[in-house]
Amino acid sequence: MAPADDLADEPLTLQGVRDAWVAYDEDDRVAAFRGLPRPDAEDLFLELPAKDQATLVGALPPPERRSWVRLLAPDDAADLVQQVPPTERAAWIALLDETTQKDVAGLLAFAEDDAGGLMHPRYVRLRPDLSVDEAISYLRRASRDRVGTSYYAYVLDADSVLLGVVSVRELFASSPEKRVRDVMRTDVVKADETMDQEALATLFRTHDLVAVPVVDASGRMKGVVTFDDIGDVLVEEATEDIQKIGGTEALDAPYLRTPLWQMVRKRAGWLAALFVGELFTASAMSRFEDEIRAATVLSLFIPLIISSGGNSGSQATTLVIRAMALGEVTLRDWWRVVKRELASGLALGAILAPIGVLRIFLWQRLHLADYTEHYMLVAATVGIAVVGVVTWGTLAGSMLPFVLRRMRLDPASASAPFVATLVDVSGLVIYFEVAAAILTGTLL
Amino acid sequence: MAPADDLADEPLTLQGVRDAWVAYDEDDRVAAFRGLPRPDAEDLFLELPAKDQATLVGALPPPERRSWVRLLAPDDAADLVQQVPPTERAAWIALLDETTQKDVAGLLAFAEDDAGGLMHPRYVRLRPDLSVDEAISYLRRASRDRVGTSYYAYVLDADSVLLGVVSVRELFASSPEKRVRDVMRTDVVKADETMDQEALATLFRTHDLVAVPVVDASGRMKGVVTFDDIGDVLVEEATEDIQKIGGTEALDAPYLRTPLWQMVRKRAGWLAALFVGELFTASAMSRFEDEIRAATVLSLFIPLIISSGGNSGSQATTLVIRAMALGEVTLRDWWRVVKRELASGLALGAILAPIGVLRIFLWQRLHLADYTEHYMLVAATVGIAVVGVVTWGTLAGSMLPFVLRRMRLDPASASAPFVATLVDVSGLVIYFEVAAAILTGTLL
Repeated sequence: MAPADDLADEPLTLQGVRDAWVAYDEDDRVAAFRGLPRPDAEDLFLELPAKDQATLVGALPPPERRSWVRLLAPDDAADLVQQVPPTERAAWIALLDETTQKDVAGLLAFAEDDAGGLMHPRYVRLRPDLSVDEAISYLRRASRDRVGTSYYAYVLDADSVLLGVVSVRELFASSPEKRVRDVMRTDVVKADETMDQEALATLFRTHDLVAVPVVDASGRMKGVVTFDDIGDVLVEEATEDIQKIGGTEALDAPYLRTPLWQMVRKRAGWLAALFVGELFTASAMSRFEDEIRAATVLSLFIPLIISSGGNSGSQATTLVIRAMALGEVTLRDWWRVVKRELASGLALGAILAPIGVLRIFLWQRLHLADYTEHYMLVAATVGIAVVGVVTWGTLAGSMLPFVLRRMRLDPASASAPFVATLVDVSGLVIYFEVAAAILTGTLL
Repeated sequence: MAPADDLADEPLTLQGVRDAWVAYDEDDRVAAFRGLPRPDAEDLFLELPAKDQATLVGALPPPERRSWVRLLAPDDAADLVQQVPPTERAAWIALLDETTQKDVAGLLAFAEDDAGGLMHPRYVRLRPDLSVDEAISYLRRASRDRVGTSYYAYVLDADSVLLGVVSVRELFASSPEKRVRDVMRTDVVKADETMDQEALATLFRTHDLVAVPVVDASGRMKGVVTFDDIGDVLVEEATEDIQKIGGTEALDAPYLRTPLWQMVRKRAGWLAALFVGELFTASAMSRFEDEIRAATVLSLFIPLIISSGGNSGSQATTLVIRAMALGEVTLRDWWRVVKRELASGLALGAILAPIGVLRIFLWQRLHLADYTEHYMLVAATVGIAVVGVVTWGTLAGSMLPFVLRRMRLDPASASAPFVATLVDVSGLVIYFEVAAAILTGTLL
């Protein structure tokens, strides 16, 4: 889009760089970053994902790095450090001030996908016996010094056990002489430090919260996760699911930034597995080679029949995967889903079959095709096979996510192509069995 | 799960009702709602989507409705009113206090999916000439009276034009004698009232904001959208895209709550369209009926060939759809995508083809199948066709979202099944053309 040599010619604006960012390659990015006035470059830097931040700072000479790394809040600094090769991490952590170094070291102990890995270690702590007025002036001082969030203040006892929470707004709205203990809420929505990020996101969404405190097993407060990290989690999880449903491994970077060979690798694995699965269709077809030789007309409808099963299976599996991800459907709902999908499958088959039958009749009568003198039997075979294959595809597609989750695998792996491949083999068997039942004695 | 008659037997808890909510039918929900102590019922009510809120309040006798509707902030009240049949709306609006009635009437003028439809009409307004201390005490009073958000205060001139924004935290951190005009930020991230919710969500994510002010064309402030509405937007948009990618219309309600006939209707439309599209495979096959009769062995690999195209097309389309939804790929990137996908498709085809060729060789040599004396030529046909079909499928799948967006349709409609169907017909043509080129004179 705008290669590095163009950059020198046009004056850079923050908005221009933002818009073109995704299209830039690494050299463009470094050049643009350095070309911006420092305040703009800082704004840009703070907006970028940790991976890009690491690239930009890494491209600077070591003496210039410190002021950039120190711009970051501890949780963001920890994310950045995780983007650096393990052997270089100590040198990067050393760039931080001492307090932040400890925070970052603590954060790096958590998996990136846990509540512990998302949390911010600094927050406003209050003692329960402070008066509201004292609390407000403390908050006022604290907000001058801290990077952390201060939408809420957390009330802790001497052992750091979380007793309650009070929002800045609630403090404002209370009489100044009351105690914090009297105005705090004690039914605090909190997260265990090992809670995974998907469950955490659901917690935020259900309760419409700006921040959730993270506690350890004994109720001691460890940090705060804020809403801005959760928006990213929601989008990330949805992207992963969508990519899996499309039949590829989740990418680690935006589409255009993923190196070609890495993208091919992420796609080839599944594609090869599906191809091997699909080889069974050749075996299934071999079993029916005599039938095909006797009645070539049967082969004409093979793509139609198997794709009907694949399509209805894709629909069912996608609906169930998403419902599971949103917590609308759980493992114990499997029987309700079976009943729904059996009914849906039969209804959908009953809608499609007449279209196929009508088409065979019409083309035959209009002399657009020749489906043999027994075309009415051929039409009946196709109609019945469609109902069978669609019902079976729907049922198999809806059950596969349950099987995967039961085996503790990700239900989103029940991708549309996976289900289609699974249903192709069985679809052929259904089709030729129906054909044998109806056409033996005439075409077969 | 827990039918209505069970509800009477066990004492209800808020958490219990929350967990079982999705599984309850409407009667269970009303019974559970009424069975909870009032404070718990209120907590539950405030967590629910507008549709459920409307159902619950609608089930109450009219005199009991007012206190429930008045629990809601104006934007949520407006959402609830939109769930009620148009003829009843006036009666519901009349339940609100007069100020909120005006707010709700104003909000109902916007489409639900626009910034205007998501916004909250109440927020803290400051004049630029107030001192910081005056502003803080004004905020303190305001937060006692208002339902609205007060993370930020908005600085407006006499015509309500937005001049700047200042966070509560920034006010705290400033010297008390300064003027608001001196501490406010003027580079405000704001949304036009007609901005659609997807663009708005991107704005929130890029800037990590708690709230975004909404302005009209002349810069006058109309309201505020807060982060809690955006989490829901992100999830909603992802769900819609996932369902479309799976080849069904987006559902209006959770999977298990969607009536069966409605679900069949949402799925049947696309499925029937795909089925009609797939009927062209029967026509394509007719063209090659002589070839199949002459060399039945060719028919054995039809499902394998067309599914390889469908699967690689599904991958490509899904990756591009998601990248477009996240703004990583725009219309003008089409040529870069063509180059990437052409290279990816060739690479993927080159990985799959040897698997197919090897399989044919092995089975023939091990006498597991008989692919005729010309099995080496058959293997060559399959191998070359796989490369061609996979490359074509990948390219077609990646371009379809661009074509749809260019036509101002939703790129997510380029579902995996749609691409598979599109590629099936062309896949057959590629396969039989390759066969004709290689096998004429031997098998054909």
